[in-house]
Amino acid sequence: MKSLQDRTTIRKYKKKEVSEKLLNRLLEQASRTQTMGNLQLYSVVVTRKQDIKVRLAPAHFNQPMVTEAPVLLTICADFRRTTLWAEQRKAQPGYDNFLSFLNAATDALLYTQTFCNLAEEEGLGYCFLGTTIYNPQQIIDTLQLPNLVVPVATLTLGWPNETPQKTDRLPLKAFVHSETFHDYTASQIDDFYRYKEQLKENLEFVRINQKETLAQIYTDIRYTKQANETMSEAFLEVLRRQGFL
Amino acid sequence: MKSLQDRTTIRKYKKKEVSEKLLNRLLEQASRTQTMGNLQLYSVVVTRKQDIKVRLAPAHFNQPMVTEAPVLLTICADFRRTTLWAEQRKAQPGYDNFLSFLNAATDALLYTQTFCNLAEEEGLGYCFLGTTIYNPQQIIDTLQLPNLVVPVATLTLGWPNETPQKTDRLPLKAFVHSETFHDYTASQIDDFYRYKEQLKENLEFVRINQKETLAQIYTDIRYTKQANETMSEAFLEVLRRQGFL
Repeated sequence: MKSLQDRTTIRKYKKKEVSEKLLNRLLEQASRTQTMGNLQLYSVVVTRKQDIKVRLAPAHFNQPMVTEAPVLLTICADFRRTTLWAEQRKAQPGYDNFLSFLNAATDALLYTQTFCNLAEEEGLGYCFLGTTIYNPQQIIDTLQLPNLVVPVATLTLGWPNETPQKTDRLPLKAFVHSETFHDYTASQIDDFYRYKEQLKENLEFVRINQKETLAQIYTDIRYTKQANETMSEAFLEVLRRQGFL
Repeated sequence: MKSLQDRTTIRKYKKKEVSEKLLNRLLEQASRTQTMGNLQLYSVVVTRKQDIKVRLAPAHFNQPMVTEAPVLLTICADFRRTTLWAEQRKAQPGYDNFLSFLNAATDALLYTQTFCNLAEEEGLGYCFLGTTIYNPQQIIDTLQLPNLVVPVATLTLGWPNETPQKTDRLPLKAFVHSETFHDYTASQIDDFYRYKEQLKENLEFVRINQKETLAQIYTDIRYTKQANETMSEAFLEVLRRQGFL
């Protein structure tokens, strides 16, 4: 996994297909990832048709890579397959609950990341769209996801047509705790975020947005309390509608 | 990632340490994984001390690898670091809600799987413990996880001392959908699960448990409706206590 150390998110792709053969090989290899009771509680919707991408785009805030990438993968927590299997086999499924959503979402996300690592090793580029859980209902409607299926991740995928700079990371000590959790002190917080706060692009970002601190960019612009609360309600409603709550 | 194709879950480990240097290198490399707004909404508790492993074991149904593995990693959804940072920088954090839990859990699980892929390439073996989300409160108490920190995955890690057989997987067509979701037909379900149902070990498992079908093993013994519903309530209560709901 040498590719990992230089990885960056890729949002611009060459006008070159990702062959079905290659894609299927990677999708299949990724399924070696462990899952709950080896039930593989996920499914992947592969979208190549432009009209469907166009209908999905608003759910992803119309980010251009959604319609420009040759392939869009929507990875779903899927307890439907297992539930239908149980019903066909004189078994009483009990997966219409929150824990089962978490189980399936876990399987789906682990699968997604193995796929990402494989794709990168192959020279492909991707962008992980966190917007999937912001607007799940639009995705559910467009992709016709039935009961007990909820989208948890989207990848735009293609051959890279840009070489972005590597982004910063917190130092190891910021996220690794020894033996038990050791709560963060004020001076540790200063220490952990110093590098990020001093980056030229971040200073510039603060300036053009007329903010006082980088943290305010996140709390006031990118991920606001009000948006988070509205989307929390919407997601819980989606879990109810899809049968997980 | 050649190691992936032969991967199996490893539950038995050699009596040989995983050096701190190696572990830290892998934990750091895994942090190249993409996260929401590059905020890295996760933390990892590395447990090596036997007395802490012993206290964690009941949360994982006393599976022997919890106390036998040289290293236990508990990976947490962590919005606390970011929240404290915001508070120290005149910013109003708004991450005490369900969406923020999902954001952090997503970051944590993607990170976890890259770590798994890396560990395997290094020749290490691991077991992903799904039990983490069954009994989160016990883990929270033992590891002293504060507000806005919730465990979502545990890995037992060490040098393999067994070579288990590769387990079966569903065929690609069982989990990949073209363009939109195509609901599973009864004959497809038969087709997808035929191989799994005919495996000698599964037939034997059905026989010794005096069940009629393999699906009943899952619904009646391994993942019952009643247990799922009880644990769903417990998890939602944990989200409330940890400040995410």
